[in-house]
Amino acid sequence: MPEVDWRGRRVYVSAVLIRTAEVQDWPRIYPFFTAIVAAGETYAYPEGLSLEEARSWWMEQPPGRTVVAVVGDALLGSAKMGPNRPGRGAHVATGSFMVDPAHQGRGVGRKLGEYLVGWAREAGYHGIQFNAVVETNTAAVRLWQSLGFRIIGTVPEAFNHPRRGLVGLHVMFQRL
Amino acid sequence: MPEVDWRGRRVYVSAVLIRTAEVQDWPRIYPFFTAIVAAGETYAYPEGLSLEEARSWWMEQPPGRTVVAVVGDALLGSAKMGPNRPGRGAHVATGSFMVDPAHQGRGVGRKLGEYLVGWAREAGYHGIQFNAVVETNTAAVRLWQSLGFRIIGTVPEAFNHPRRGLVGLHVMFQRL
Repeated sequence: MPEVDWRGRRVYVSAVLIRTAEVQDWPRIYPFFTAIVAAGETYAYPEGLSLEEARSWWMEQPPGRTVVAVVGDALLGSAKMGPNRPGRGAHVATGSFMVDPAHQGRGVGRKLGEYLVGWAREAGYHGIQFNAVVETNTAAVRLWQSLGFRIIGTVPEAFNHPRRGLVGLHVMFQRL
Repeated sequence: MPEVDWRGRRVYVSAVLIRTAEVQDWPRIYPFFTAIVAAGETYAYPEGLSLEEARSWWMEQPPGRTVVAVVGDALLGSAKMGPNRPGRGAHVATGSFMVDPAHQGRGVGRKLGEYLVGWAREAGYHGIQFNAVVETNTAAVRLWQSLGFRIIGTVPEAFNHPRRGLVGLHVMFQRL
């Protein structure tokens, strides 16, 4: 299924299907969710959450949505999306993304990001905000920029990176 | 109890006591909480929450804290505070403030803000972040600036103001 991009890397993009996550997907998301949180480089979630405890951090209820990226039987990544705030802020969407480290760098994150933008536009959101993009996660920052997001501001030293110490968190936004 | 400031306005400042909110304070906070949310000018909370539903939006559990500002028997306002994020973001505090509209403009908000800054410093937080200060709420913006906060960035059109339409939300921060 994987193809090769112009740099000779295997890419999954054209074969990736994004679909709504089902209850039975969660045990397959949880292993890379917990690995990514434990690595500590990209998300300020509590560490050490059990399968049950972590579920509500990732599996969204309507009007939000959680999706998975699959190629055949393989589950490569997941994204969650929904209103960034309730009430008078509910016209702005937000989203979070995790790609299984075994499948990173092959376009899955981009596919999930494109899905988010399309979903939010179709659902009538006015814009999309990311509240906390770790500034040292330059692959993500560049990806979001290429999808139309810009950095609104950076909260200094707001994330405790395991190797780099206190680094900034970008607030990113795009108007739809 | 109220004194008069240099502009001849009654101020409570010197007499205001800030103390931890008790369970029995919530029914006295709820009326102005719900009035402020319904006015729709400052907070993106769900509207129409019942006494029970609204409780978890305001009454914090440790390590967070909710306090009330009182003068004698009168409950004038309330603030909640705690870590802005879990995990690798938990070294940055956040806070929210509500002053009973019947007692606004008399220094109660400043007193609560000063309390937050002192609390966060004492608790060892590295900084304090406000995630969503409505840009048209200039009294609040100026108050936070006078307490050492600066505007990190403004998410455009992220708040649906009842009279002014879509206005921006400031992210504000101060390092401690």
